[in-house]
Parts: sequence; structure tokens; C-alpha cells
Amino acid sequence: MRNTVLFSDITIVTPDMADSVSIMEHAYCVTSGNTIEYVGVSKEEATQVAESFGEYDVYEGKNRILCPTFVNAHAHASMSIFRNIADDLALEPWLFGEIIPREDKMIAKDFRYGHLLSLAEMIEGGTGCAANMYDGARICSEASVEAGFRCQQTALGKKFIDGVWHTDEDEVRDFVDYCKNETNGLILPSLLVHSIYLYTEDFYTPLKELGEKYKTPISVHISETRTENANCVNQYGMSPVEKLDSFGLLTDTTVAAHCVHLSDNDRTILADRGVWVAHNPSSNMKLASGFADMISMQKAGVRLCLGTDGASSNNNQDMYMEMRLASFMAKATSYDSTVLKASEVFRMATRTGYLACGFTDCGIIGKGMKADLQIVDYDCPQMWPLGNPLSALVYSCGPKCVESTMIDGKFVYYKRELTTIDMERVKAETSESMDRLK
Amino acid sequence: MRNTVLFSDITIVTPDMADSVSIMEHAYCVTSGNTIEYVGVSKEEATQVAESFGEYDVYEGKNRILCPTFVNAHAHASMSIFRNIADDLALEPWLFGEIIPREDKMIAKDFRYGHLLSLAEMIEGGTGCAANMYDGARICSEASVEAGFRCQQTALGKKFIDGVWHTDEDEVRDFVDYCKNETNGLILPSLLVHSIYLYTEDFYTPLKELGEKYKTPISVHISETRTENANCVNQYGMSPVEKLDSFGLLTDTTVAAHCVHLSDNDRTILADRGVWVAHNPSSNMKLASGFADMISMQKAGVRLCLGTDGASSNNNQDMYMEMRLASFMAKATSYDSTVLKASEVFRMATRTGYLACGFTDCGIIGKGMKADLQIVDYDCPQMWPLGNPLSALVYSCGPKCVESTMIDGKFVYYKRELTTIDMERVKAETSESMDRLK
Repeated sequence: MRNTVLFSDITIVTPDMADSVSIMEHAYCVTSGNTIEYVGVSKEEATQVAESFGEYDVYEGKNRILCPTFVNAHAHASMSIFRNIADDLALEPWLFGEIIPREDKMIAKDFRYGHLLSLAEMIEGGTGCAANMYDGARICSEASVEAGFRCQQTALGKKFIDGVWHTDEDEVRDFVDYCKNETNGLILPSLLVHSIYLYTEDFYTPLKELGEKYKTPISVHISETRTENANCVNQYGMSPVEKLDSFGLLTDTTVAAHCVHLSDNDRTILADRGVWVAHNPSSNMKLASGFADMISMQKAGVRLCLGTDGASSNNNQDMYMEMRLASFMAKATSYDSTVLKASEVFRMATRTGYLACGFTDCGIIGKGMKADLQIVDYDCPQMWPLGNPLSALVYSCGPKCVESTMIDGKFVYYKRELTTIDMERVKAETSESMDRLK
Repeated sequence: MRNTVLFSDITIVTPDMADSVSIMEHAYCVTSGNTIEYVGVSKEEATQVAESFGEYDVYEGKNRILCPTFVNAHAHASMSIFRNIADDLALEPWLFGEIIPREDKMIAKDFRYGHLLSLAEMIEGGTGCAANMYDGARICSEASVEAGFRCQQTALGKKFIDGVWHTDEDEVRDFVDYCKNETNGLILPSLLVHSIYLYTEDFYTPLKELGEKYKTPISVHISETRTENANCVNQYGMSPVEKLDSFGLLTDTTVAAHCVHLSDNDRTILADRGVWVAHNPSSNMKLASGFADMISMQKAGVRLCLGTDGASSNNNQDMYMEMRLASFMAKATSYDSTVLKASEVFRMATRTGYLACGFTDCGIIGKGMKADLQIVDYDCPQMWPLGNPLSALVYSCGPKCVESTMIDGKFVYYKRELTTIDMERVKAETSESMDRLK
């Protein structure tokens, strides 16, 4: 492919700067390098812009929608090697009996190829970015850069020695330097603060200071289950939100996953601090965690995005599914079919997700923004006749309809072929991982 | 394709006669005509059986799952022409403001091509049969037979003249004869009794007698919304289940859609009568009808299957989605991740659906059963590594992974190409329908 691409006579669906979603039919878009250079309805202007960059490719837009790639705002990508091995179990036997014993035996290649497998799945489903919370920051990020995939990636930032957690400043400093100097802006670092229940009380302040020193966002699980809340109240006399806030861990760069069981006060704190909440409807339903109250969070002014959680608790990584389910869950639990409309969940899955991950120039199809785009083929029974293109994307579409995915100006999936990931190798290695970690 | 097919070295996942699901790896299956002639793990035996029918084709099973086609036990297929035109609305403005005014203007070709469009979508998603509740019995059934698709299809059985409903015995008799004599067993008739709220009280007994005379099952919506229940109690002093039962309309051939709001007594009646309940998780969530209590129905002994409802209230017709959502909904509402396991929703979507529709020799991969089969390609990031094949089908798979669909021994979808439906014509006609009916 050439460096410049002209998307011709295509339907553009994009979040706009006015907090809504714009639909433009018979539109044109030009990307050059990693930047969107033209968006509009003039073929002539689009052609002039494209020609100004030299030779260019044309992507024919008949029966196609061009929209931003999705952001999977809560992923554990390497966990795809634990897919479909332990289902229909209660949380504890699943986590402590099946998942953690396997994680304890993971070696470097398990992180790498599990991660690449998830990237392949996400890319095929129109996702171009993830907030990835997992150990193996460097090895996973190198895989992301190879695949041309954008991530906010956690540094672990700690070591478990003789039963005690210690901060690992070297790892954080090295990873922050690596992200800045060697990833072409594809990877932004954050710091993993797993949850309020995994560490002893005295460890949260050192973690917070480490994050502050290296200016990393915090990535954290909050109030996923009723048990977590009950234990926290029992131990600290506060909710997980309140207790984490007491350490100063909740800021306008914190990404908080789940947030299923919140009080009014919790929601006020999350809104006041500007925390980004990553809602995970599939995972919360499958693990019987409950229904996050998106409507109350929305009313309280909490900033909302969407994630899949790991492939071992979902069991796929399909952001179309999560948009659909987020809307469905809000409608069904409130007995109101007008809430969490298509426009709202579409923004959560795109623009808001990018802002949550710190990629402020992604998630809107507009001049000067990054060229992170997906092309949806609606020439298929599942999406025909198109009707409202935004409704079609949220309520009818799925990975089957995604034809191409461009990240940072490069097609990583072109006309249904992955261009950057060697799937035969990934398949062989992940099969071996699953077998070995039994 | 030849008349005989040998599926070679494939993973078979099938409901069995013992009320569970069997998984057979490195298995073989031979179909000849519309019948399964061999199932087992012996290549030699399979080959002998295949050869006994003369020349045969081989379907290579590497990285493939063979399982029964799904039954969409509650469909309004022609409504695909109203897809994505009216979303995020309350039920009344949606139904009375957007859908019914369009339905009133439908002409014959709208029924035909809308129906074919839905069949194409279902076939591509591994569905081989539907309980289709809609007007246009004959025209829809002719389309089904052309497409090689199995249906339990409602006869309307009534006419609306001068504001009054009258039974239409001629239509029912003719349609029953047609099904028996001209559809090669693909179409079974039922009688449309829309709901307890659409007709005056005196019309239910004539409808019931008409169904009895022609031995047709009854197809009915029950307790979809709280409003329906409240109105019924207000008018009759009984719930919809109780009132329909008082007319004798609930029997062991009745297919009752939705059943979202039931009392203990309602569930006891449904179980005692042997009614088949078609659960529609996506539609019930999207229209904010609520959560059907599948666990209580299961405990009461109600027979459960799954449906998508129409494409205008879902907005796709993906039985993988419905299996997944049925399980998720039951888990989340009960705070118990061990309920409605993969095996249970898989049986609901396959064997139980066929029994509900009256196709008693479908839905199990076993010798002598009908050859209604789908082939799933798990050589893709979304389903890799496979893990438990049943979990993978229910929790990871989707229409993207369906490679082929065979109905009544004939490939209607072969290696991702529809073989019986002229999609260019269907697309043109349904686009015209959507535009005209605006």
C-alpha cells in the first residue's frame, strides 16, 4: 500500500467535537502517513489533497462505512491462551483453581503469543487500541509495536519477594523510557494497581508515589463483585472507591475497570476526580458479578468507556458485542428502551476510550487527527438494508462485517487479511502454551 | 456437490438422547440424501458407508466443528426490511409509530424478499430452521422451500373486516395441504394467535377450534411486557397465561414467545401443558421488556428454546448471540455463574428448538437423523486455541466462524457462499421496500 489513501464515496460515521455522532454520506477521506488530511463530500477537493502527497491508493467506499477504530478500555490480552478452558464456574474456583495456577507457570513466550493472538482478534473486530492490564509490559509492548497496535500498557511496578510486595522503580523507569523512545507513540505507559484487595494497606502509598514520580496513569479494578465491596468495608470501613481515593489513586488519568457495585458517594468521587470507568458488560454478566449502573454513573457525570476484559472471562474480545450489551443492559435494568442510545455507546467505544488511554488525537474522523480507522462492509445479509448507519453499527454489525482496520495510518487488516501478524506462528505457539499450562 | 458427503476427521458437538451434549474428536460423519448415515470415529467404517452410496464428496474437518444447525424459535423473518429504522425508542412509538404503519402498506414482494433476506442471514449464522410468525404464509413458505430452509410457519387464519376479526378456514386448510404436499417436509404449519391483547375475548375459542380442526400448533406471544400483564389482569382478572389456558390454547405443541413476566402459577401451567417457551434475550433487553426468569422456568420443568425475534427489534438474527445472552442473563440476574451452562443453552438452540417446531428427527447428529448441520471454522483468532469445543461454540463463536450450513442434506451455504439465494436480487428488492415503506 502507498503512504496516502483516498477513501472514496463512503459513509462516514464518527464522534464529533460536539459530544454527539455525525453521519456523512457519499463522503471522502484522505489519509497520508499517520494523519487524516481531508474529510468532506467533495471528490475534487479530496483528489487534490491526495495528489498533493504524490501517488496514492483508492479505497472504494460502495456499501462501506468508515468509522474510528474501537478502544478496548479493559483488556488482559495474553490471557487468550486460557480461553474456553474453565467456564460455568463460580468466580473463586475459576480464578484460584484454574487461572492463577496457570498464570504462575507462564513463561515469556506465553505473554508474547497470547498477546499477539488477542491483537489479531481485536484487529479483525475493528479494535485499534487497548488499555492492557497485565504483567510483561516490555514483551507485550514489543509485540504491539510489531503488530502496529496502539496500547496503554501497564507496568507491573512491583516484585513479590518472600511474601511481601516491593515497588520496582527500575522497571517503571525503563518502561516509561522505552515507551517514549522506541514505540513511535503507539504505547503509553500506565501503572498497574490491581485492586484494593490484592495488597496490604501500606503498599498503596508507595505505588501512588511511584506513579506520580513517572507521571503514569493508574490502571485499577474497582468494585467488580459484591464480595470485594463487603470485604473492603469489613477491613477498612470504606468502599473500594473511597479507600483508593484516600490514597490519592483516583485522578483524571486513572482507568477503573468494572465499577459494578457503587454508592452515590462512590459515583460522586469518580466524577469529581475525572476517573475513566471501563464498563465490561460481557464479563460482568458471565461471571455473575452483576449489572453496572451506567445510567446513574452517566447522571453523576462519570466518564464512561467500554472493555471486554480478558478472553478467559468473556470469552471473546468483540467490542461490537460490548457496545450492544452495554446499551441492552442499561435498557433492560431501567425498563427504559431510550437510554444509552447508539450514539452514546458508540462514543464510549471510540472517542472516550482513546481519551481514557491518553491518545487525545484519535477517535474522531477529522482533519489533523490520527488515521485510526475501520472499514465496515455492509454488503451482507446481517446489515442489509442499512437503515440508520449508526444503529446498524451498534445493533446489527459484528466482526464478520469488518473488512479493514488501519492504525496510525497503516492497514494492519486489509480486505480481511492480517498484514502484520504471523497467524500460523501465533496459532502454533498459543496451542503449545495452552497444552503446557494445563 | 454429490448426494453423499463424508465429513472427515472433524470435531462433532451434538445434543444426545441423554439430555446432555456429546463431544467426539477426530470423528467422521456420512450424510446421503437428507439423512445421516454414519457417525463415529472409524475412518474405515465411514468410508465403507460412504462408498455404499456410490460417489461422494469429502469435507475435510481439520480445525472444524460439526454441530446441528440452530433453530430460531421466534422469528418474524420479513421484518428485516424494517431493520435499523427506529431504535432507542419506547415500545409504543416504535410499534405504533414506526412499524405498524409500514406493515399496513406491505405488498407481496416485501414479504418474499424480506423473508429471503432473513433466511440468508440465518443460514450464514448456522441457523437451519425457524418458527416464523408472520402474515404471508404461502409466499414466505415458497421462498423458504426455494432457499431449502426449514420452517414452522404460521397461517394467519383470520381476516379483519369492518373492524372485526373473522376466522379464515380456507387459508388454513389450503396452507396445511400445501405444507403436506408441496414442501418436501420442510414446512410445518402452525396457527397465529398473536397474543391475549390483540383480539376481543369472543375470538379466541373460534381460533382454538380452527387450530384443532386442522391439527396445527399454536404460535403466540405471552407476557412480553409488564403493560401486557397489567392490562390482562385489569380486563380479565387473570394473567395472559391463565387466560390463554382458559381457552385451551396452551398445549404440548404451542410455541410461546417471550414469557418475561410470569407468576409461579403461570410457570406451573406452562410446564403442565408442555408448552415450548421461546426465550428472546436480545429483543427483551433492547425493548426494555425485562429479563425472563429462565432459572425458575427450568426448575418448574418448562421446555425452553431460543429465538431472535424480528430484525427490527434485535437488530440481527444471530443465534450465537442469543445462546450467549441467555446464559449471561441467567447468570447475572441470579448472581450465580454456574447456571444455564453452555450445554443447556446449546440444547435449547438446537434439539429443543427442533422439537418445539415439530421436526422430531432433527437436532442430533446420529444415524438416521436428518442431515441439518453446520460447520464451524475455528481456525481464527476469535476461537483459538479451541479449549472446550462446547464452551467455544457458546461463548466465543459467532457468524464470522460459520463456514457451511447443510439443511435436509443440501448445502445452502458452502464455504462461505450462499448457494440457493440470489442475494443481488434480494438486496435490490429489500432496499426498494425499505425506501417505499418510509
